Amino acid sequence: MTRLHVPIPLRWGDLDAFNHVNNAAMLKLLEEARVRVFWIPTIDSEEVPSTAVIDASLEADTLTLVAHQEIEYLAPIPYQRDPLDVQLWMGKIGGASLQVAYEVYSPVGATAQTLYARASTTVVMVDSTTLRPRRISDVERAAWEPYLEEPIVFTRR
Amino acid sequence: MTRLHVPIPLRWGDLDAFNHVNNAAMLKLLEEARVRVFWIPTIDSEEVPSTAVIDASLEADTLTLVAHQEIEYLAPIPYQRDPLDVQLWMGKIGGASLQVAYEVYSPVGATAQTLYARASTTVVMVDSTTLRPRRISDVERAAWEPYLEEPIVFTRR
Amino acid sequence: MTRLHVPIPLRWGDLDAFNHVNNAAMLKLLEEARVRVFWIPTIDSEEVPSTAVIDASLEADTLTLVAHQEIEYLAPIPYQRDPLDVQLWMGKIGGASLQVAYEVYSPVGATAQTLYARASTTVVMVDSTTLRPRRISDVERAAWEPYLEEPIVFTRR
Amino acid sequence: MTRLHVPIPLRWGDLDAFNHVNNAAMLKLLEEARVRVFWIPTIDSEEVPSTAVIDASLEADTLTLVAHQEIEYLAPIPYQRDPLDVQLWMGKIGGASLQVAYEVYSPVGATAQTLYARASTTVVMVDSTTLRPRRISDVERAAWEPYLEEPIVFTRR
Repeated sequence: MTRLHVPIPLRWGDLDAFNHVNNAAMLKLLEEARVRVFWIPTIDSEEVPSTAVIDASLEADTLTLVAHQEIEYLAPIPYQRDPLDVQLWMGKIGGASLQVAYEVYSPVGATAQTLYARASTTVVMVDSTTLRPRRISDVERAAWEPYLEEPIVFTRR
Repeated sequence: MTRLHVPIPLRWGDLDAFNHVNNAAMLKLLEEARVRVFWIPTIDSEEVPSTAVIDASLEADTLTLVAHQEIEYLAPIPYQRDPLDVQLWMGKIGGASLQVAYEVYSPVGATAQTLYARASTTVVMVDSTTLRPRRISDVERAAWEPYLEEPIVFTRR
Repeated sequence: MTRLHVPIPLRWGDLDAFNHVNNAAMLKLLEEARVRVFWIPTIDSEEVPSTAVIDASLEADTLTLVAHQEIEYLAPIPYQRDPLDVQLWMGKIGGASLQVAYEVYSPVGATAQTLYARASTTVVMVDSTTLRPRRISDVERAAWEPYLEEPIVFTRR
Repeated sequence: MTRLHVPIPLRWGDLDAFNHVNNAAMLKLLEEARVRVFWIPTIDSEEVPSTAVIDASLEADTLTLVAHQEIEYLAPIPYQRDPLDVQLWMGKIGGASLQVAYEVYSPVGATAQTLYARASTTVVMVDSTTLRPRRISDVERAAWEPYLEEPIVFTRR
């Protein structure tokens, strides 16, 4: 299995009035996992995975736009201090777009992990000058292909 | 066309560092539209549509859980003062679940409206004591059927 | 009394797990009131008060930086559909900075209003090239002086 | 110096359209630091400091209400992967209330740390049945007194 494991800590503020992580807050967790997996750090000393090849600074040549998202919520998430285990892989690598797949688990630890949610995000690479899609580069493809796995099959549509 | 039109004002804080409404903030806008369409108000003087038949107080007999969401982002949304025009209808009314469909448009006004996003949310009615799904009641079904339309067909999966 | 009344709708998502508007969400409400009071609209048809003289686009000559905030929380705020009545005025107009004062009230309506919170924000006008404070202009001073009132006196420090 | 050091990771979503951590997001960081310092964990295996003596579950006898906050923003905060170093102590321990003091620093590491912000939060202990303030208990006082230091003196009011 060639998944990236991204530890993402909850914040108590992710809860809503029902005392569970809010459905929209879940997308914030996935966004943070993507940032940490795909973006070149701006601070040299930061440790990042080999997949971090996108220049996401505001002056970059490329914009990465979210075109589509799908989320299946399987179990309510309570507040907890230890980071969630967001497992992330590439569901598809297309010509100009990438489908990121995720399974969101309870923290790594002594007990069996709970699968809280499954999700996918389609990201399109856009030229920041022309605002038109641009092809995924060879460098990007080489960095991401080791993490290509089956896409999520959603069962609750 | 039997859609509900829910005016949802943006906040400047919905923007992210790319100066457009953030992809996760979009779900907050849809959540607010759902609350205003489906929930019985706790304050008598508030005006609500005839679809507002769910008791969403913390002591209610029913929890409404979000089981699945899908969103297609069609155009970036800039900050603007006038409320977005969130058009909302029922894509499916099942035994214990409801699929809410949305199209999110730029404000109603003089110029042609831009379609920013299309989305659907599957909500499951859960008994708050047993935590098991419970059937949609006759009152609910009668309130919502006038707004039953074709579900969203997503083209970017 | 020369206050601006800014209607700011709550979102159910402003609540936290205690089922009241979260203390940090309160600052989002005040931010939105400031944006609507001070910023020149980018869309011509939008209605704004005469105080809206700050160009807040990303290419503007001036950055408005928040230097200090203080908030006194007087009563918990429940979710409600009608907009809160954020009353806003100038507590001080300095050389390069402005102190904005607020009282946050329950919606305008039939019953007596509840004062939920009192707050102040000090905003510094910064030259976006040199990143140094720049003087408040005559145009700004003329636009804001009609709304100069006593600053908030905080009693719970 | 008897401060608690709470590592609080940023999220890219904390940035606003000016590409810096938003002024309201700062309060979310402080809230998370408080939760981790003061609340009894609900999961046995979680590691917490000796100050974590407040039962913050929804069924607890005590509500902790935020009565007052003050924040001085000293430097803009860019997104970065390593956690901020939130230094937290008790500025005052009163009869029924506690003033929490904070200095928010850039991550612990090789280079000199930047002080981004200074803040204080006054929390009132409220009996959850009567909704009246209740006295700080001996257990609480004993847990918190080792971290009593000078309160923040704000210079930008």
